Amino acid sequence: MSTKWSKTYLFTLREAPADAEIPSHQLMMRAGLIKKVGPGLYTYGNFALRALRKFENILRQELDKRGAQEILMPMVQPAELWQETGRYTAMGEGLLKFKNRNGHDFALGATHEEVVTDYARRDIKSYRDMPANLYQIQTKYRDEIRPRFGLMRGREFIMKDAYSFDVDSEAALKSYELMYDAYKAIFNRLKVNFRIVQADAGAIGGSKTHEFQLLADAGEDHLMVCDKCDYAANVEIAPAISPEKKSTDAELPMEAFETKGLKQISSLSKALKIAEHDLVKTLFFSANDGLNPSDKALKPVCVLLRGDEELNPVKLKNALGLSNEPLMLTEQEVKQESGAWPGSCGPVGLKMPIYMDNGVAGMKNIIVGANRDAEHLRNVNFPRDFQATKVADLRKAHAGDKCPNCESGHYQSFRGIEVGHVFYLGTKYSKAMQANYLTQDGESKPIEMGCYGIGVSRTIQAAIEQSHDKDGIIWPMGITPFHVHIVVLDPENTEVLQAAEIVSRDLEARGYEVFIDDRVERPGVKFKDADLLGFPIRLNIGGRGLQNGEVELITRRSKEMTKVKLEEAVDQTIARLNTLANENQR
Amino acid sequence: MSTKWSKTYLFTLREAPADAEIPSHQLMMRAGLIKKVGPGLYTYGNFALRALRKFENILRQELDKRGAQEILMPMVQPAELWQETGRYTAMGEGLLKFKNRNGHDFALGATHEEVVTDYARRDIKSYRDMPANLYQIQTKYRDEIRPRFGLMRGREFIMKDAYSFDVDSEAALKSYELMYDAYKAIFNRLKVNFRIVQADAGAIGGSKTHEFQLLADAGEDHLMVCDKCDYAANVEIAPAISPEKKSTDAELPMEAFETKGLKQISSLSKALKIAEHDLVKTLFFSANDGLNPSDKALKPVCVLLRGDEELNPVKLKNALGLSNEPLMLTEQEVKQESGAWPGSCGPVGLKMPIYMDNGVAGMKNIIVGANRDAEHLRNVNFPRDFQATKVADLRKAHAGDKCPNCESGHYQSFRGIEVGHVFYLGTKYSKAMQANYLTQDGESKPIEMGCYGIGVSRTIQAAIEQSHDKDGIIWPMGITPFHVHIVVLDPENTEVLQAAEIVSRDLEARGYEVFIDDRVERPGVKFKDADLLGFPIRLNIGGRGLQNGEVELITRRSKEMTKVKLEEAVDQTIARLNTLANENQR
Repeated sequence: MSTKWSKTYLFTLREAPADAEIPSHQLMMRAGLIKKVGPGLYTYGNFALRALRKFENILRQELDKRGAQEILMPMVQPAELWQETGRYTAMGEGLLKFKNRNGHDFALGATHEEVVTDYARRDIKSYRDMPANLYQIQTKYRDEIRPRFGLMRGREFIMKDAYSFDVDSEAALKSYELMYDAYKAIFNRLKVNFRIVQADAGAIGGSKTHEFQLLADAGEDHLMVCDKCDYAANVEIAPAISPEKKSTDAELPMEAFETKGLKQISSLSKALKIAEHDLVKTLFFSANDGLNPSDKALKPVCVLLRGDEELNPVKLKNALGLSNEPLMLTEQEVKQESGAWPGSCGPVGLKMPIYMDNGVAGMKNIIVGANRDAEHLRNVNFPRDFQATKVADLRKAHAGDKCPNCESGHYQSFRGIEVGHVFYLGTKYSKAMQANYLTQDGESKPIEMGCYGIGVSRTIQAAIEQSHDKDGIIWPMGITPFHVHIVVLDPENTEVLQAAEIVSRDLEARGYEVFIDDRVERPGVKFKDADLLGFPIRLNIGGRGLQNGEVELITRRSKEMTKVKLEEAVDQTIARLNTLANENQR
Repeated sequence: MSTKWSKTYLFTLREAPADAEIPSHQLMMRAGLIKKVGPGLYTYGNFALRALRKFENILRQELDKRGAQEILMPMVQPAELWQETGRYTAMGEGLLKFKNRNGHDFALGATHEEVVTDYARRDIKSYRDMPANLYQIQTKYRDEIRPRFGLMRGREFIMKDAYSFDVDSEAALKSYELMYDAYKAIFNRLKVNFRIVQADAGAIGGSKTHEFQLLADAGEDHLMVCDKCDYAANVEIAPAISPEKKSTDAELPMEAFETKGLKQISSLSKALKIAEHDLVKTLFFSANDGLNPSDKALKPVCVLLRGDEELNPVKLKNALGLSNEPLMLTEQEVKQESGAWPGSCGPVGLKMPIYMDNGVAGMKNIIVGANRDAEHLRNVNFPRDFQATKVADLRKAHAGDKCPNCESGHYQSFRGIEVGHVFYLGTKYSKAMQANYLTQDGESKPIEMGCYGIGVSRTIQAAIEQSHDKDGIIWPMGITPFHVHIVVLDPENTEVLQAAEIVSRDLEARGYEVFIDDRVERPGVKFKDADLLGFPIRLNIGGRGLQNGEVELITRRSKEMTKVKLEEAVDQTIARLNTLANENQR
């Protein structure tokens, strides 16, 4: 049953609304794929749903194949479940809470660890009941304070979340690998360019995690990818291995000197004619992540970095054993804790823990603030002049840093959009919620869990963000709403319309989906819309071409146009689609 | 890919939890189809999802075929949209409202007229853009004060809602008929026993509506169905046509008499030796439906009914032109307005509108209360002794009443579960929300709308409520999670397991879904579970039977058991399934 524009609820826009900032958001609005209902709230149009359903089917096939089973959990969830794990508070304001008419407390599901653990603890009693893997494709809500970028950072979104239940960590890691493989297969089938990267486990808990990232310039994530081996990591955790200084200079006597007006590394570098990477900067944070609202105490720590490096807050968070990233001290707090305003501080004589990036550890005779305003010290040496609580990798990795895996390759830098993640959770949720089972020996043990998410609606937009040009969307083959867009140049000419319908019917008989633009509109308007909608192949069928028995076949991505005989149009189109389907996405 | 119990997350229960009151709710809990998360909130198990998905596919096919297009609207909706139609208040507490972290007001979608009208008004500008029909299959929330009966009256539920947009009422009624046909086709394909009944339009507005009702004893709706023709109506609106009295008696002079202690029609009937249907009862209501909170005025009206009849509150509501059913006056209010306590009141001398059921209009010399305590009047005659504002059909219809359509048949009484409705809305929403279009003559007119709902999750349970026995579910063919349940009697015998797998594979190759119980359990346990799960055909495959080359084929509904040759098991099973699929459900 071919789909004709004249019978389709489809309204394209020439201009995207002003609040659409990135190309994919603009194009989705212009192509009628989404329409804004409120901030971060969208209605999906029919063509967006077609893409979503294709994606969902791929998800179901790959997960079912690996023994996962689909269920469906509610969006509205009793507060009691969230209180069992403490996340009713810990999730912060992103978890939307409300009272119903009877005064009971509920949350709108932002994630479903609590609900699924409750589900499983009522069924799983014995080691014989595992392994088990439950997943759902479901609408979630996160109360983003500033929703933006359309579906990329929306409030209501569609997610596929899976949860595994196993007897021990060995079995749980097998489940993890199985989901890792499923995700690889899923994104390969989508025909998108993605990377699997190591990442920080974050607040969800657990100790092993990988992110699935679609590469795109507008991506919010920064990735380090080895140019030789398979290694890739989110910059949040990517180890920084740059040629470290191991100075063998003799340690000189420390001395103070005046540095009035020299508060920045850059001005110090200029004034002293010492390169920034030979200087050391001193930063201050509080090792209090605010998780306990009654504990407001300042817990100052000092961090030392080379002058040209940037702190990686996730590395510092992990070094400090915190759940959230630590906050920087205010200027006032720095003055109070160090004795000097920022810019004149240093490690010597400080009464707080000192965390030193390993890029600093090998330096000799360094220059740091004296903890007296407008004064610095030179020839400071570690550990002669100050002690460090910890020497660690605390800085942000750069493109060009050495790969920690193969040690011969170097990092390349990419932007990515996180569309999936796999987490090994361990017993964080099962312990909190008493989800226990009996082992073969009759011992009661908490279930080992993993959780595995894919942002379904987000992936659709990320794919467009990755694959578009100035004229519109270029749908990847795995989720394109239609494979072929037939532009009927003379829709009032019965012969032309009939030719289009026959081509469409034959393509559909061979398993391809066809959209026919049969509107009475100028060809230019229809070509523009075809480019905007972005299905992989376009066929122009018109009266003049048919006089020569020809139609035009255009590949959306390359814009390559070929004239083909009408009777070969179907075979040629399918050949072109097959080529597209087999193209390497990298 | 056959589904084996040993690899399936499936836990059946011997006992249903105490709060499951009706059979379908008990059976769904016992079969692991649903699990309670909170009051009115359920997680759907894998097998329930299988049934849901089948139903959803039927919905999509029948709606798409008729030109409707699927979209997906958000669950979280800005209050502003609801305020445009006034329903933010008018929906009452069933509409769950909340503020997000930024202090903005939202509602959880209980229905989507506002959101879809907003969607369409931004696209539909011209008569050329219609007809249009948009639908979604989506999760809704209604804050039921006392959720019960599982999915039947839950808080979160899955609904298919469709909305039509047309240029005028004629076109809108065509869209209505198209959806009516779609619904008929849908419920026919489900293979359930249903009736299409006329119903009251209720608070949603609009003037034409039909309900699709699944027949089941536990149904909350009461239906009147003609035994001769196709006519069927919800008792709410079913006309009451019983042989009316048309007395030709002479009118006697009215007189008062003492009736101390005779406050009920029954006691009056006994004391006076007059049949209840020859007496008249007087009721009092306030014609104020409470929609305007600032208007608390009592607007008393009197209603006259024959002594053996029951008032139909919906008919009275419509006669009074109200949106909600009117409240009865309290005893105190009756005393104040009539002069007597209830039981001694009547129409003579009343200072309020009198609504008279047409069953009373033909009576002569009636006995009614005197509006003085412990006193009645006899020989009261209309219109000699009192006036009526309106004579109308105000009573509840009964089984046995004459059919208003064919006039030769009579009502039969059924209980039904409302699973679908079609509404002609007119311009109620388009006018309130300025959803206008330009006619061919360049005139701006409000769009004509219709709305069409099917309770997707509710239908699954209603089908079970209609089709079960004491042992378990009897799935209707259209939505059964699996067609065939193979009980492997000796799962540790490789030959037996292999036979089961071959039968399963062959059935699957022919398009049927098979569930294999390969658990190491006693046959009795497995038979009980098979009856509980309720797939249409069961095959018992065991070592002893196979020695004779036989398996047992059991029809779930009839429990009829036949021994069939192993090599004929597939054909016989399919023949039996075809018979079941073609059975008349009535």
